[in-house]
Amino acid sequence: MIACAPRLEAIALPGLPIVSPGDDLAVLIAGGLVRADLALRDGDVLVIASKLVSRAEGQFVDVGATEPSRRAHELAARTGHDPRHVEIILRESVALSRAAPGVLIVRHRLGFVVANAGVDFSNAQPPAAVAARGRGPWALTLPLHPDGTAVKLRAALGAERSIGVVISDSFGRPFRLGSVGAAIGSAGVPALHDQRGRKDLFGRTLEHTVTALADQIAAVADLVAGQADEGRGVVLIRGLQFPADGGGAAGLVRPATEDIYA
Amino acid sequence: MIACAPRLEAIALPGLPIVSPGDDLAVLIAGGLVRADLALRDGDVLVIASKLVSRAEGQFVDVGATEPSRRAHELAARTGHDPRHVEIILRESVALSRAAPGVLIVRHRLGFVVANAGVDFSNAQPPAAVAARGRGPWALTLPLHPDGTAVKLRAALGAERSIGVVISDSFGRPFRLGSVGAAIGSAGVPALHDQRGRKDLFGRTLEHTVTALADQIAAVADLVAGQADEGRGVVLIRGLQFPADGGGAAGLVRPATEDIYA
Repeated sequence: MIACAPRLEAIALPGLPIVSPGDDLAVLIAGGLVRADLALRDGDVLVIASKLVSRAEGQFVDVGATEPSRRAHELAARTGHDPRHVEIILRESVALSRAAPGVLIVRHRLGFVVANAGVDFSNAQPPAAVAARGRGPWALTLPLHPDGTAVKLRAALGAERSIGVVISDSFGRPFRLGSVGAAIGSAGVPALHDQRGRKDLFGRTLEHTVTALADQIAAVADLVAGQADEGRGVVLIRGLQFPADGGGAAGLVRPATEDIYA
Repeated sequence: MIACAPRLEAIALPGLPIVSPGDDLAVLIAGGLVRADLALRDGDVLVIASKLVSRAEGQFVDVGATEPSRRAHELAARTGHDPRHVEIILRESVALSRAAPGVLIVRHRLGFVVANAGVDFSNAQPPAAVAARGRGPWALTLPLHPDGTAVKLRAALGAERSIGVVISDSFGRPFRLGSVGAAIGSAGVPALHDQRGRKDLFGRTLEHTVTALADQIAAVADLVAGQADEGRGVVLIRGLQFPADGGGAAGLVRPATEDIYA
């Protein structure tokens, strides 16, 4: 089984509601599949925008009620960021990668090196019940344990089929401009797909071909879904072939000990 | 016009031959479209693996005939690479980014920061006419001017339709494991898609949403094509919506002056 296919289809599920804390994403996604007249098949992959998972988990942080630490004030001065934002970023982080004017890049508690710890400060409007509990404005942090959530969603959605689930976000890159989809959680589909041992067309064994399969799946979904439209936060990808395994998106993180750009 | 669509399709063109120097890629691709019974439509994007372009251009380098410079020998000692490989890499590069055991990362003459200058040392079997002219083994370097080639291929293939062309490769990432598709040339489709100014679902304007559209298109093609199978080096992507412009994949390069990881 190889992770390539002659034809691939990606379909954004229509009519998903804006997710509120406590919502059951599996139920919402199942409803979207019904509306699209789609029945899951073996080998389908569902890509779920991390924002939906964060909203379902209620990962809203009241920026207005956040007290910046001394370190947050220092980094705010270096970056020009709001000290309360910096405080929220630091609480999500295990290490600083780079701070410069306009730039704050950290190692997130989930392992990823990412700007602003992946916290959404621009698009985090909470439902009224949450908004009533604080001052605002609100930030939305990444899901608590996206690999575990992917496993649960896969079990809830794909009990009768062998499907994959990817929880995606959109990350910048150090050496390239623009953001691309990235997997922060996955289950049922290999996050890394090792093609070493395959033969090339000339019969020689390929040496350096480990593909970040789950990241590329997230990129497809990002193309289809668009970031602004939360109503398109779930994308079904059909036509991939992959071995049904994989240890989760945590495996995509280059260990800090191997980080030659630290 | 926005770069998202509810449904996207990606189809690997069947039956492409192994490309030889001097081959006309536009003719080969047109043949693949006919075999797949596909007529190009407005908005289609053709993604062409850089290896096909390099082979058509005859970018084969005779490793056996390469004389390493003193600097190549020094870097070979640091990295453990073959000094002749290092020499070929340096000739393709404008600056060194990182050298460590097993790792040689450079700024390519095209601007990209990439391992081994994107040179293929494992899968570069030349046609017999080229092989007869040297000792071998052979390496294959990146295309000479992929943005320009994308413009020409777009004109040759899409004269009657508004299509996009992306020339793709597969790059590693500094902070994440595994390789992903990346655009090294593009025409007719924005390499970067600026969604700033769009409104989110709550009517607020999005701030930080510049998507690396051409890189994500390259990622889709990489999923569909698989690296090992040169017969699948061209992928048609249908269903994207994008403004028909864009200044080429060179725009994806973060300028060295903005490189906080230099």
